[in-house]
Amino acid sequence: MNFRSDNTATVAAEILAALTAVNDKPAPSYGEDPWSRKLEDAFGALFEREVRVFTVATGTAANSIALASAVPPWGGILCHREAHIERDECGAPEFYAGGAKLVLIEGEAAKISPEGLKDALGRYGRDVHAVKLAALSVSQTSERGAAYRPDELAALGDMAHGAGLAFHMDGARFANAVAALGCSPADITWRAGVDLLSFGATKNGALAAEAIICFSADYAEEIARRRKRGGHLLSKNRYVAAQFLAYLENELWLKLATRANRLARRLGEAAGAHLSVPVETNQVFIKPGAAALVKMREGGADFYDWGAEGSGEARLVVSWNQSEGDVEAMASLLASLR
Amino acid sequence: MNFRSDNTATVAAEILAALTAVNDKPAPSYGEDPWSRKLEDAFGALFEREVRVFTVATGTAANSIALASAVPPWGGILCHREAHIERDECGAPEFYAGGAKLVLIEGEAAKISPEGLKDALGRYGRDVHAVKLAALSVSQTSERGAAYRPDELAALGDMAHGAGLAFHMDGARFANAVAALGCSPADITWRAGVDLLSFGATKNGALAAEAIICFSADYAEEIARRRKRGGHLLSKNRYVAAQFLAYLENELWLKLATRANRLARRLGEAAGAHLSVPVETNQVFIKPGAAALVKMREGGADFYDWGAEGSGEARLVVSWNQSEGDVEAMASLLASLR
Amino acid sequence: MNFRSDNTATVAAEILAALTAVNDKPAPSYGEDPWSRKLEDAFGALFEREVRVFTVATGTAANSIALASAVPPWGGILCHREAHIERDECGAPEFYAGGAKLVLIEGEAAKISPEGLKDALGRYGRDVHAVKLAALSVSQTSERGAAYRPDELAALGDMAHGAGLAFHMDGARFANAVAALGCSPADITWRAGVDLLSFGATKNGALAAEAIICFSADYAEEIARRRKRGGHLLSKNRYVAAQFLAYLENELWLKLATRANRLARRLGEAAGAHLSVPVETNQVFIKPGAAALVKMREGGADFYDWGAEGSGEARLVVSWNQSEGDVEAMASLLASLR
Amino acid sequence: MNFRSDNTATVAAEILAALTAVNDKPAPSYGEDPWSRKLEDAFGALFEREVRVFTVATGTAANSIALASAVPPWGGILCHREAHIERDECGAPEFYAGGAKLVLIEGEAAKISPEGLKDALGRYGRDVHAVKLAALSVSQTSERGAAYRPDELAALGDMAHGAGLAFHMDGARFANAVAALGCSPADITWRAGVDLLSFGATKNGALAAEAIICFSADYAEEIARRRKRGGHLLSKNRYVAAQFLAYLENELWLKLATRANRLARRLGEAAGAHLSVPVETNQVFIKPGAAALVKMREGGADFYDWGAEGSGEARLVVSWNQSEGDVEAMASLLASLR
Repeated sequence: MNFRSDNTATVAAEILAALTAVNDKPAPSYGEDPWSRKLEDAFGALFEREVRVFTVATGTAANSIALASAVPPWGGILCHREAHIERDECGAPEFYAGGAKLVLIEGEAAKISPEGLKDALGRYGRDVHAVKLAALSVSQTSERGAAYRPDELAALGDMAHGAGLAFHMDGARFANAVAALGCSPADITWRAGVDLLSFGATKNGALAAEAIICFSADYAEEIARRRKRGGHLLSKNRYVAAQFLAYLENELWLKLATRANRLARRLGEAAGAHLSVPVETNQVFIKPGAAALVKMREGGADFYDWGAEGSGEARLVVSWNQSEGDVEAMASLLASLR
Repeated sequence: MNFRSDNTATVAAEILAALTAVNDKPAPSYGEDPWSRKLEDAFGALFEREVRVFTVATGTAANSIALASAVPPWGGILCHREAHIERDECGAPEFYAGGAKLVLIEGEAAKISPEGLKDALGRYGRDVHAVKLAALSVSQTSERGAAYRPDELAALGDMAHGAGLAFHMDGARFANAVAALGCSPADITWRAGVDLLSFGATKNGALAAEAIICFSADYAEEIARRRKRGGHLLSKNRYVAAQFLAYLENELWLKLATRANRLARRLGEAAGAHLSVPVETNQVFIKPGAAALVKMREGGADFYDWGAEGSGEARLVVSWNQSEGDVEAMASLLASLR
Repeated sequence: MNFRSDNTATVAAEILAALTAVNDKPAPSYGEDPWSRKLEDAFGALFEREVRVFTVATGTAANSIALASAVPPWGGILCHREAHIERDECGAPEFYAGGAKLVLIEGEAAKISPEGLKDALGRYGRDVHAVKLAALSVSQTSERGAAYRPDELAALGDMAHGAGLAFHMDGARFANAVAALGCSPADITWRAGVDLLSFGATKNGALAAEAIICFSADYAEEIARRRKRGGHLLSKNRYVAAQFLAYLENELWLKLATRANRLARRLGEAAGAHLSVPVETNQVFIKPGAAALVKMREGGADFYDWGAEGSGEARLVVSWNQSEGDVEAMASLLASLR
Repeated sequence: MNFRSDNTATVAAEILAALTAVNDKPAPSYGEDPWSRKLEDAFGALFEREVRVFTVATGTAANSIALASAVPPWGGILCHREAHIERDECGAPEFYAGGAKLVLIEGEAAKISPEGLKDALGRYGRDVHAVKLAALSVSQTSERGAAYRPDELAALGDMAHGAGLAFHMDGARFANAVAALGCSPADITWRAGVDLLSFGATKNGALAAEAIICFSADYAEEIARRRKRGGHLLSKNRYVAAQFLAYLENELWLKLATRANRLARRLGEAAGAHLSVPVETNQVFIKPGAAALVKMREGGADFYDWGAEGSGEARLVVSWNQSEGDVEAMASLLASLR
């Protein structure tokens, strides 16, 4: 029973098949191929408006290149204390942005609240001695599996734009958020003021397919340059484009995410009072204590501890193709702890 | 007849099949999977010694991360004026290395000669006012399709180490060099003093598989960090590892490169006196004049102009799976120009 | 009555005279002049051991260059949330260090406690996904005017070195700390484990004289390069060296700081219960409420508000040559608020 | 007889006196003092138009901060192969500009010709794979003591702007150029298209006074940030401002430079056919052969060898206060070589 991460899962059959389908003859390199050229239309349809799309190899690259293109080196990037860009990217945003500063905000379920944002906006002075706050970055879903509702995002977006900040969303698990909220992708992005989205497919069935979606063409030239300089412009880009086209076709992305969310809810019900955060998407956080975690591992469960060392908290991630059997076995284990 | 670049080619069947073969069940992420763990043994066998291997998404990333790990921000990187790192990477080495300087050397067939290197070594002073020369980077094969012989590399390696420089090789077309020289991979790398190799497979049949091969463990910690910070540590790394394992198995790499080199020689013979550089590997440079190039394009040939604008020079690259028919047609075209 | 900052004060007569004294004939540039060459001996005598000295134009440069030379770009620099490097240098440490991260610690009187440090040391993981904690930076005196005692520093130094961190001290007001503690400069630097000190003279009577003092020669080559690259190697460096020589001669530094501290204590006594932090050096923090601050300004006092907006807190800094009359007038004002 | 460099000279009496004159009472820090506030008017009068002025500690800082504010990290900066920014700043421009590339141009007397510029403008492609040429930097006077005439600069300026480049001038010896040309400062700066000028006073009688002069306000915000981040915003900035005000008052700058130029011409006449470059300003380049240089040193002359090692070439720099006796002695020595 492997619940360590959705990035341990395999690649969806539809996506793997797409690689073979584009492998028939030479094609222009560096994104000039027919499949790469279809990407902006495909994403445009998904988001109900014109967009610019830049594929990259990882979510770290998507986040860092997007943010670097929106903030000056002396900029401050507001994010949650538990944000992936803060804790899990070895300072990649600082590297790409030439030494920008991440400014940390607290908040329940790894979500930024308007109060938290307001407080942070006043944290630095406005003159040349302090960094200049320049971007707000949120994770949808959050690092604690929570999904921002459209109105919540719109409120943050208004505050960000009012303060002259760009609004970035880390959408490593964007599909899970849409599946949970039952809204359109547009509702939680540009309609709520999001300027730049890191759109992830790797965790939800792709092999390695991440993209920066620009809702403003202003960032495009800079992103194109930073992508090349970062070594993220792939010569045989059609094999990335093909993954995305298969991912978007027939709402594969939504089906896979919906299934994962559903199975995660099943675990949430089994965990009951041991949940440390309500289950909204495909991540389940439990805090049954250290002894119970030992027992779970003895029962064959594989997962990461979470939070402070020795806190007795753990994270269970349900992948797009997690077996029903695994989920039932885990649910039984969780129920046995109550 | 597409002779634009070997990066327009498709993916070899063996390599595509390998992706499916590893797609059966969850596996640890970020290179902890069984296939990624086999890479150092597989490359160790290829190079006849222990090596450290770091996969990345592109050759630009391999070059930049390797060089950044070998030079300080105030370092100078010696390379040929036509080197890929100088002309085609949008300053990626400078970006990764925190502002290092590329120091350019002239030389026939885009190769660095001992005289050229000696001259460049004296170009900057040794005190704090000038950059500190810190690395030599050569391309094997060169950007003009030439291959350095083992003794040529050993001479450069001795000079580089004698001057306190690290010795890096851009091996985007490394297989073609080995195929042309009939030597072992070790002979043109660590036995000749190479410390760091960018080992490319993408141009020779892979989908997206590039690696930094370290012949000294000293660089490993820094490369690991820079790879992560650059967004080049892939979560589902097994799909990159599988490409390399298939590439190395049964000398697939060598078969593909040998074939491409052979077909390129065929074009070289047809071009005769129009060759601007002797054909050694899979790139063919011709200089039949601007009118002849127009004629070739009218004849259905697709390729890049080369050299200064209006010089009447062109580059023809033979891919690993270039059709014999294409080659024969191109050979006829070339012969018709004589 | 100007109590805004000690950097609004004039230059001590002894220091200004020293500029004239070295102005008699040509001298080698870039620190090869006789006065610059005496600096390491002069500081060696002050610190009772061999040191390397690098003069720079500002405290921001001293802090940033020192830290950049002690941490990799993926390093974390532990400091207090109110540290000058965090709040007042526009991200200069991140810039010089190629994108390193400041990791913030809370603590009374802007001092880092062992508990705060211990907590911060566990904040990031040890693998390649998180930044690598690489330096601890403390301010002596702190941004709230507190002085770390030798034993406090030694405890922090032990923890830092035990965790593999370099230990840096921002000594913009170093003289005031020595004056307050009555110890030797060695006691609160290398004897307590400090590896790198930003030694400031500008706030205590110099024109523009700041230096990085290295207690380990390991950092020297890198600091020399980073200083040059930052544009901080002055051609006519003798005029900076002369300031330092005059500053150190006859303990001028200690006399000036002792006087400022004494006058600040006078204000502390006058402020009584309105003090928000006990007065240890030349900075006085009071929290008499917003209305009282208005009254003080109406009474002719010039100073900065401090802390959160509207908190009713203020900072009064006593300069090396603050007039006794100003201090008495301010003391009366403060007493009138009680 | 010290002819090593004009940065070995002392400080002019008028400038040293100005430091004392502003040392009477507290003044606002960080450039908010009355003297700093007068700088833009003073330079505005000099240049016959509105300008923005940013003082920094060194010419390296002025050049690097100006250029970094005019080019993106993926930008190319065109300059002469012998330019100070290329050879003598340890890569500072690359550091400040986040990894930009210096693109080198040949040319007589270290001057860039229109042909040289035209050739360089075609050296890189326009797509995302190559760096984007973004600035042209010339040195006035050049590193070989030559002065660009107004029409020469205007031609370069037209070409630069036509190609979308910013036009920067390294004016470390700007005064010597004006003195030699007999033109107005405006004629060789903004009237010729210069956008950014590094205005040096240190080599011509100041202690440490360099400034970035912006002829376009567009660069100002970025320069202000980069100056602070580089550690070049001095707290007691009045002492830098005072140097400039004294330097500009009564055309002191022009008198000092005129004198140095006149004495250099005297050396040029004495050197006759041994001159390797015609004398235009205060630098004299001679090539009498290695043996003659030995003889000159035996005769008490102190100077730098120049050009390639063993070339028998040397540079003699005449400082603002070089003694007439020194010049006569050197002239005799030079004459004796003929």
